[in-house]
Amino acid sequence: MIQYRQQTPEGVQDYLPVECYNKVRIEAGMAKCFHRSGYNRVDPPMFEFMDVFASGVGAVRVEQMIKFVDQTGRILVLRPDLTVPIARMAATRLRGEKPPHRLYYIGNVFKAQPTSGGQREVVQAGVELLGVNSPEGDAEVIALAVEALKSAGLAGFALEIGQVEFFKGMMEEAGLTGEQTEELRGYVDEKNMLSIELFMREHQVSSKHRERIMQLPALYGKEEVLKKAESLTQNERALSALETLREVYDYLKAFGLSQYVTFDLGMLYSLDYYTGLIFRGIADPIGAPILSGGRYDTLTGEYGAKMAATGFAVDLKPVLIALERQGRMEPAPGVDAVISASPKQRAEAYAYASALREKGRRVVVAWDCDQAVLNRYALELNARPIYFE
Amino acid sequence: MIQYRQQTPEGVQDYLPVECYNKVRIEAGMAKCFHRSGYNRVDPPMFEFMDVFASGVGAVRVEQMIKFVDQTGRILVLRPDLTVPIARMAATRLRGEKPPHRLYYIGNVFKAQPTSGGQREVVQAGVELLGVNSPEGDAEVIALAVEALKSAGLAGFALEIGQVEFFKGMMEEAGLTGEQTEELRGYVDEKNMLSIELFMREHQVSSKHRERIMQLPALYGKEEVLKKAESLTQNERALSALETLREVYDYLKAFGLSQYVTFDLGMLYSLDYYTGLIFRGIADPIGAPILSGGRYDTLTGEYGAKMAATGFAVDLKPVLIALERQGRMEPAPGVDAVISASPKQRAEAYAYASALREKGRRVVVAWDCDQAVLNRYALELNARPIYFE
Repeated sequence: MIQYRQQTPEGVQDYLPVECYNKVRIEAGMAKCFHRSGYNRVDPPMFEFMDVFASGVGAVRVEQMIKFVDQTGRILVLRPDLTVPIARMAATRLRGEKPPHRLYYIGNVFKAQPTSGGQREVVQAGVELLGVNSPEGDAEVIALAVEALKSAGLAGFALEIGQVEFFKGMMEEAGLTGEQTEELRGYVDEKNMLSIELFMREHQVSSKHRERIMQLPALYGKEEVLKKAESLTQNERALSALETLREVYDYLKAFGLSQYVTFDLGMLYSLDYYTGLIFRGIADPIGAPILSGGRYDTLTGEYGAKMAATGFAVDLKPVLIALERQGRMEPAPGVDAVISASPKQRAEAYAYASALREKGRRVVVAWDCDQAVLNRYALELNARPIYFE
Repeated sequence: MIQYRQQTPEGVQDYLPVECYNKVRIEAGMAKCFHRSGYNRVDPPMFEFMDVFASGVGAVRVEQMIKFVDQTGRILVLRPDLTVPIARMAATRLRGEKPPHRLYYIGNVFKAQPTSGGQREVVQAGVELLGVNSPEGDAEVIALAVEALKSAGLAGFALEIGQVEFFKGMMEEAGLTGEQTEELRGYVDEKNMLSIELFMREHQVSSKHRERIMQLPALYGKEEVLKKAESLTQNERALSALETLREVYDYLKAFGLSQYVTFDLGMLYSLDYYTGLIFRGIADPIGAPILSGGRYDTLTGEYGAKMAATGFAVDLKPVLIALERQGRMEPAPGVDAVISASPKQRAEAYAYASALREKGRRVVVAWDCDQAVLNRYALELNARPIYFE
């Protein structure tokens, strides 16, 4: 019994001072970045009705949610992501305001099973741009993703950009059903060449399309990937998807951010939720993605007001791990001064402490100790002792 | 079904931009205040093993916690307060560091039934001072509570200070058992004179003590209350409790903060959890307390390392309500400029937007619109239009 009391459950953690300082520093940097780009912060509840998340186009499966039963018998879940609540919020509470909505958030999301990083409680910072249905919207959020990761002080990071419409168009062209498309999506996303080949034999995909589809996992690289991809399809939907990517890339070149971007047309993490350009961020030397995002034009419709939408979320824990491995974690700031005073000098000492704090100094007061004790305590804290006799 | 999707459960809420801006502004002001007083931020998990909170001295009853079952069958709870997890953290993870620990937090806590304000999800900011067993520690956290409420921009607020040891000592003196003491505590805390009188008749409390106990609910006011209280007891424990209050008051006078403080020796919200001075904050024109705190010297012992401790938590939602009623809610900052450009001027426009953002301006970019559309959009946002031809 007493042992459980001293433990925390699997997949959650205490943020102790140094790590917490860096977490809050990163959060503040990203918040500033989002705020200055015209995004407004919102904060949905930590738990909601399961129905909100169990819509057809949610990104998280019901089994992956932490559920509990309300007093009234209704099933509630700890929010498994923040995009869905914000889509709900925009479609209901912000209905009276004219889009586009630029919204951002910083908060925790929860999973029933630990993520690849072993977490069940994940802190995220992200943005949603609602009501902009054009490549300029995609370019805006990708640029913001780059600025957000820069603000964290990360040294080596990159964004990979995909397009689910390109894949859907190619599947259409090859005559595959929705179910077959979903099966193949998984294999392509895993770059599992053997399964792709077996799948195509089994489903008797024509040799022309077979050859083309086999090239999907290799569509990875800079601008030249778009040209190569164009040569693999005559499908309108697929070609128009590539056109979006080209336009977005033109924006990013103009912004001076194209060096952060790589195309990966075999990246296909969800076909239901995302409806166009998708992207994710990776950082040296972390295996797992630190950021993911994309266009989801059908989600807000689930809550009664269809709006074009795009956004991303950064997972802050892997960013902290990357910073630590890159030697870029900042030490928590120390205390600047320790003040004590004889009883009759307390008023003066407190006023002095307040004045120093007003100037941004960190000041501890240790009343009722003599000069020697004060000096020892200040030495421990590596701070300046100030005694009012 | 679709209706539940558009709703949020009872007792939780969406923070929309204006309220969220003020919430975050208050959080940031309090964080700055705590940080500059030498407190380090920590962040425990949102849920923990129920055992952590179900210790004998927890402030929240098990029925009041939101529970769910882990994959492994263990019962987890959404944290009902933050003092308990921080006591656990200090007693385990910070064991290697020499006290005193000065820690602060900002985060949500959860209740199964709505609070008096109708909330099941409550955002709190608070501090814990661990390892200081003297009135100077109480004075430090009370001064910090005043500074924190000031930083929020609240106009009218006051702190009420009580002392559970004074009551316990008087009960000891009157010869009442622990159970009787607990029963009477409730009546005194509610200032329920009739029940107090009936209780004393029933338990045949001597007329001398009866007379004294009847005065408890009236022990409300400034310094003079301490003198009056002293005249009601010869009990060592009670007298020494009053002595703490006097010392704390001396500190607050020296700090120039005594005008914020009133004594209320009939305020007795918990005898198990708190072990000395307790206090709470109220703000015009809110009925419910916005802040509560006090000394809890036995709690960390539950997690394996007994340490003197004192602290407080501010409930931010009632602070926001008070600010709104006082007309002190700040408008969310608007957008300063909206920028657009012809395709060949994008690079220059993005660089200019970045430069303005660097200077702290809020800048929205609206690519691919002509000057007329830009002007209209800028007018809607009440911002300056800037077009790069």
